[in-house]
Amino acid sequence: MPTNEPINRKLRMALVGGGRGSFIGRVHATAAVLDNRAELVAGALSSDPVRAKESAEDYAIPLDRAYGSYRELIEKELALPEDQRVDFISVATPNHTHFEIAKSAVDAGFNVICDKPLTLDCAQAEELLVAVESSGVVFAVTHNYTGYPLVRQARQMVTSGELGDIMAVRMNYIQGWLVTKLEDEEQKQAAWRTDPKRSGAAGCFGDIATHAFNLGRFVTGLIPEQISCHLRTFVQGRQLDDYGHAVVTYENGALGTVTASQVTHGRENDVTLEVDGTKGSLSWRQENPNEMWVRKNGQPHQLYTRDPNAPFTSPGAAESCRLPAGHPEAFFEAFANIYRAAYDNMARRIAGQKFETVDTLYPNIYDGAEGMYFIQQSVASSNENGKWLPVKHKKARS
Amino acid sequence: MPTNEPINRKLRMALVGGGRGSFIGRVHATAAVLDNRAELVAGALSSDPVRAKESAEDYAIPLDRAYGSYRELIEKELALPEDQRVDFISVATPNHTHFEIAKSAVDAGFNVICDKPLTLDCAQAEELLVAVESSGVVFAVTHNYTGYPLVRQARQMVTSGELGDIMAVRMNYIQGWLVTKLEDEEQKQAAWRTDPKRSGAAGCFGDIATHAFNLGRFVTGLIPEQISCHLRTFVQGRQLDDYGHAVVTYENGALGTVTASQVTHGRENDVTLEVDGTKGSLSWRQENPNEMWVRKNGQPHQLYTRDPNAPFTSPGAAESCRLPAGHPEAFFEAFANIYRAAYDNMARRIAGQKFETVDTLYPNIYDGAEGMYFIQQSVASSNENGKWLPVKHKKARS
Amino acid sequence: MPTNEPINRKLRMALVGGGRGSFIGRVHATAAVLDNRAELVAGALSSDPVRAKESAEDYAIPLDRAYGSYRELIEKELALPEDQRVDFISVATPNHTHFEIAKSAVDAGFNVICDKPLTLDCAQAEELLVAVESSGVVFAVTHNYTGYPLVRQARQMVTSGELGDIMAVRMNYIQGWLVTKLEDEEQKQAAWRTDPKRSGAAGCFGDIATHAFNLGRFVTGLIPEQISCHLRTFVQGRQLDDYGHAVVTYENGALGTVTASQVTHGRENDVTLEVDGTKGSLSWRQENPNEMWVRKNGQPHQLYTRDPNAPFTSPGAAESCRLPAGHPEAFFEAFANIYRAAYDNMARRIAGQKFETVDTLYPNIYDGAEGMYFIQQSVASSNENGKWLPVKHKKARS
Amino acid sequence: MPTNEPINRKLRMALVGGGRGSFIGRVHATAAVLDNRAELVAGALSSDPVRAKESAEDYAIPLDRAYGSYRELIEKELALPEDQRVDFISVATPNHTHFEIAKSAVDAGFNVICDKPLTLDCAQAEELLVAVESSGVVFAVTHNYTGYPLVRQARQMVTSGELGDIMAVRMNYIQGWLVTKLEDEEQKQAAWRTDPKRSGAAGCFGDIATHAFNLGRFVTGLIPEQISCHLRTFVQGRQLDDYGHAVVTYENGALGTVTASQVTHGRENDVTLEVDGTKGSLSWRQENPNEMWVRKNGQPHQLYTRDPNAPFTSPGAAESCRLPAGHPEAFFEAFANIYRAAYDNMARRIAGQKFETVDTLYPNIYDGAEGMYFIQQSVASSNENGKWLPVKHKKARS
Repeated sequence: MPTNEPINRKLRMALVGGGRGSFIGRVHATAAVLDNRAELVAGALSSDPVRAKESAEDYAIPLDRAYGSYRELIEKELALPEDQRVDFISVATPNHTHFEIAKSAVDAGFNVICDKPLTLDCAQAEELLVAVESSGVVFAVTHNYTGYPLVRQARQMVTSGELGDIMAVRMNYIQGWLVTKLEDEEQKQAAWRTDPKRSGAAGCFGDIATHAFNLGRFVTGLIPEQISCHLRTFVQGRQLDDYGHAVVTYENGALGTVTASQVTHGRENDVTLEVDGTKGSLSWRQENPNEMWVRKNGQPHQLYTRDPNAPFTSPGAAESCRLPAGHPEAFFEAFANIYRAAYDNMARRIAGQKFETVDTLYPNIYDGAEGMYFIQQSVASSNENGKWLPVKHKKARS
Repeated sequence: MPTNEPINRKLRMALVGGGRGSFIGRVHATAAVLDNRAELVAGALSSDPVRAKESAEDYAIPLDRAYGSYRELIEKELALPEDQRVDFISVATPNHTHFEIAKSAVDAGFNVICDKPLTLDCAQAEELLVAVESSGVVFAVTHNYTGYPLVRQARQMVTSGELGDIMAVRMNYIQGWLVTKLEDEEQKQAAWRTDPKRSGAAGCFGDIATHAFNLGRFVTGLIPEQISCHLRTFVQGRQLDDYGHAVVTYENGALGTVTASQVTHGRENDVTLEVDGTKGSLSWRQENPNEMWVRKNGQPHQLYTRDPNAPFTSPGAAESCRLPAGHPEAFFEAFANIYRAAYDNMARRIAGQKFETVDTLYPNIYDGAEGMYFIQQSVASSNENGKWLPVKHKKARS
Repeated sequence: MPTNEPINRKLRMALVGGGRGSFIGRVHATAAVLDNRAELVAGALSSDPVRAKESAEDYAIPLDRAYGSYRELIEKELALPEDQRVDFISVATPNHTHFEIAKSAVDAGFNVICDKPLTLDCAQAEELLVAVESSGVVFAVTHNYTGYPLVRQARQMVTSGELGDIMAVRMNYIQGWLVTKLEDEEQKQAAWRTDPKRSGAAGCFGDIATHAFNLGRFVTGLIPEQISCHLRTFVQGRQLDDYGHAVVTYENGALGTVTASQVTHGRENDVTLEVDGTKGSLSWRQENPNEMWVRKNGQPHQLYTRDPNAPFTSPGAAESCRLPAGHPEAFFEAFANIYRAAYDNMARRIAGQKFETVDTLYPNIYDGAEGMYFIQQSVASSNENGKWLPVKHKKARS
Repeated sequence: MPTNEPINRKLRMALVGGGRGSFIGRVHATAAVLDNRAELVAGALSSDPVRAKESAEDYAIPLDRAYGSYRELIEKELALPEDQRVDFISVATPNHTHFEIAKSAVDAGFNVICDKPLTLDCAQAEELLVAVESSGVVFAVTHNYTGYPLVRQARQMVTSGELGDIMAVRMNYIQGWLVTKLEDEEQKQAAWRTDPKRSGAAGCFGDIATHAFNLGRFVTGLIPEQISCHLRTFVQGRQLDDYGHAVVTYENGALGTVTASQVTHGRENDVTLEVDGTKGSLSWRQENPNEMWVRKNGQPHQLYTRDPNAPFTSPGAAESCRLPAGHPEAFFEAFANIYRAAYDNMARRIAGQKFETVDTLYPNIYDGAEGMYFIQQSVASSNENGKWLPVKHKKARS
């Protein structure tokens, strides 16, 4: 059930990051082409130019477009004729390099799919936001958990009023992989994520709590007001938080909680969302993403499954499916749904049409900037023992 | 596998509360006799003397010991010869009457099994605590969730060091029955629980968050230091909180969170506990109490079942079982385990032996008083928008 | 929510079997008194007269009614005045003694609650059935899994037509405890269950497949026609089957399958039932008995929970509950529901009223006899490599 | 973690079937390219030549290689220079056309990935098998459920002896979509699957029971001996079975059961496998494929998750993963794992190397032929009311 793009060709993609040993670069590359609407034709896969070239083979990127740096990529691609030049650049590097790469790409007029968190700090995020607004490019941030069909169903159930007024939101992201000090064992993923120079002001809260917070924002559309946060570093000698908890108030009076852990033994990637409305409640868990509970007092508990053909499935959820019920979809497909939604806007841009930029189906620059503000205020609040700080961003989806 | 009491007769029980329409009185009466170690021989089942007599029949209490008030019960039982007089009095009335009943019983030298929360406020709790200490009676508070065999297993896994140092504790108690304003519909259970005169300073936090907090305390033995709390009343016109969230710090540096809701559609009695230790984590859910997850990085997830004969089962858990694995036990049996543990101490008291009063297997007067302090400080903190307040009680289990 | 009996006193119970080391005797004793409608006043707890006396203490049975044999019990109780004499006798002994005990009790006019399988073979069962019919006593067989509230709900959903015509029934009972040759290790439970002299013609199929078959019969009311069975003994040297599988045809054209195992590592007491109807399907699992799935194409999966107050709960299920939703009930309560239903008929008999004997809420002598016929024909079919044999009993519930 | 092929280019794929409205064609196309090791360059997407051309666009197949029939495809591709010609042909058409297409492709020297069941009947299967043997091409059959990482882990746990000797295997495949007579409503998928001319001798048993049987074969390697089968058509007027059950004996004495349903309301695509060994048991469920239970008496239940980095993960399972634990993989990835394994052999063939043809990681021509024999003997047995018939194929994996 792919949306048909209004252009009659595949989009051309460049990948920055994703060299050997990377995890998320490969995910971007796989998700981007899952629906056959794009092809990966260029890359700057590593900050080490030799490794960048070598890695190109893994992605079947032609060697003449396997660049040694993002700067070279942008320069050389700009020099190509328009009908060969890449349409968009995916940024799958450690956090501290997002800004310079994304900013350069945006300024050069390329659409961008950027990993999260958006930048290293809020100042970068704001500067990038301004650049995106003035350039008019399509800019997506891979808060990928919003790409699951049942998450989109959840959003539509909230916005349609089926759950009534939202009173409370519980957002959790529980992992265990950092309960030992992996960063001392040359584990690449752990090393940069626990290093403030590369990861930013927060560790656990930047890496995963932002996902949980964003998931709650996407599903409920509630505007956050204030945050009170408590971060902890339980592993001795670690530079950044590996556990944290925040309370969030929303404009409508709802109360939210965000709990994130990297130190809970045996827990893998346990993102969960619970939403309480006056007419119904729902809960969803990423590790079993084809199911969602919807509950209403006096009725049996309802287990919604991802079923594109069921009468209870919302259009947005149905369109986000590629397989019938019982044939499970998972992480790659959700990630690809972010790409697919961004492609629709890229196609509109190519066709010279206007397109929505705030309430997009994909997480956008405003979501990304909001996430950076969430991180900054979480850390600031925690540094003042949970002092309430504003967290409402100037422009954001509802 | 009942522990054999050192006395060779059944204990004699009186029940206060539990008249027709009551829920928890029947639970006390059933749990108390489950192991055939006690018999219910007297009662003051309702504050309405006529109803008190009528209800006696439901419990097969002889009419001459179906008293019209707790005062009459205490007076008349004291007048009986010692070998007929009741050994203990169970208090299963709304919160505001716990104090006067329990205090009178204690002062008269009766052992007491009291429902939670202990009293209406902290002043009453402290006064009662002093009375219990001076009288030397056995006093148990039915924080019944600690009676589940796997909860006792959890405690032993923590205290034995199997999970390492405890870093974080997540305590939740989620219900949905009060999402409509049942107190306006003459629903008896709802009416007193939402009435500050009968329920105390907190609604949801007094009724259920105390259970969750106590469960975390029992399992981890961590001493709480401070609390920051946010209570909400989401149902318009309700007099007490129906949702709340607290952050708790513990002396050892651990971080706890307590979330309680009475307004989450379709959720029934969903008490959950998650404990993160440096060597392992565990999680347990009351609605499926015969299972508990234990996880350690690098190992398959371990599902412990309630199995009195398994090598991995701790002695305390095994002794708390009445059935082999796969033959599920549930609420009544856990409740009965509180009684059973109290009976052991009652038997010691009758035999003139010394007995433990702080680190008891059953929740005791100190747990009860701590719970009242937790409620008081939660409300006070919430009234000051989450201000940190001390919550460590002067004497409590570890 | 106990049904009020039309008599105004507790019923008096005698227990045969249940001496120290027994499992099921204790279950009978606990379940029988759970609702305070009976008291255990006499027993013949062991075939060893000394041990019989000693065990009496565990049950608080007065020593003068702790008999040395079931014969003595019947004789001495008959000699008591009618207002002291026991009303019913519970038989909780190994299979090979059921017949003589139950027959003697029935002939003496006592009501009987008998463990399953009913007898050692079909001839005994038929003779006992005749005796019950002529004596007019209440006779219940503890196929206890039918006592779960949601199993009764399932039956009512089938009989009301909510699931349409039943096409298929899948009945499973999977255990693992006999995967090693426990009978060689002086494990009492294993010893008699694997000994044809004490257990009967079948091992696994007699001990547990009968439960699964009976569960399917109770819920669907379908009349079985023929059976094709394959038994296996996987543990070398064992005398009876420890695994088996049968296909059953029903009069209405439905197809049933019964699978039972005692050799599946780690499985505890995993009784499951799945029923496929033309309008809906359901599935239930004993180890988590407070939940049942009901499914209809085009609708979300419905999880029914045991909720006495929910509009979707059938009256029979609601009356079988003792606790509100979310406060789990389990094995003892289901077992007690069998007793409770039998008590209602005992009270009717005492009051001289007529009572239903075939379509009773409790499993009765016809269910018991049908179970024996099921065992006999399963073994016979298996001996002829799955030859189809008739399995329809002459008189049975629908 | 893709295996590196010994050739340095993408394989070229042609797709037969998969025109608009098809389900499985799109799955083949997506899975085939998931690892960037192949590209779809040609197709004969529909038996309607006009529709074949139109559908090409959906797959981004160049129009000059969008053929009007499989015959044209083979002829024209053979005419291309070897370095442009497709390397393999995927057959995703209704069953009755598999034979002619696959046979032609094999005879022309193309490698083939063929949907299941292999052919319309056994005679075709045997003829095709001979053709494959004489041509030496790589031939895979998409019994895709064997591609899940944890299924491969299960196989390795059996073959390594970790579970001991296998005693019993329970294979189930439960669906509900055909409980109404969809074939009368112009539902394309239902129409051909219930039509013996296009589907073959069996409906439900051909479409899904073969998958379940194959899954048991793959995991256990047990050689089947005999089968006793009972098929049913519950929906009136349907031409083929929509429910069925078989008992299977294996050479080593193990007992297997296969249950398949298309008429169980609300069940989606519920493939489950349970294996009982003398040292351990396991169970796996396709709808939640990232988890597998492993159980051993006396130990906690072990939940294995799909975790490429865990010490308990077998090499074969780890190599079948593309994402870390907790980032769920699902249907597409399992399907792609079949392709990936076939690619490895195609690369060997291109490189002139020998390769395994019977005990391959992908289901092969022998598995396919065995599946056809299973269908034939199931139908024949059912026609004789469950008569035992041989089911051991002359050449098959172990």
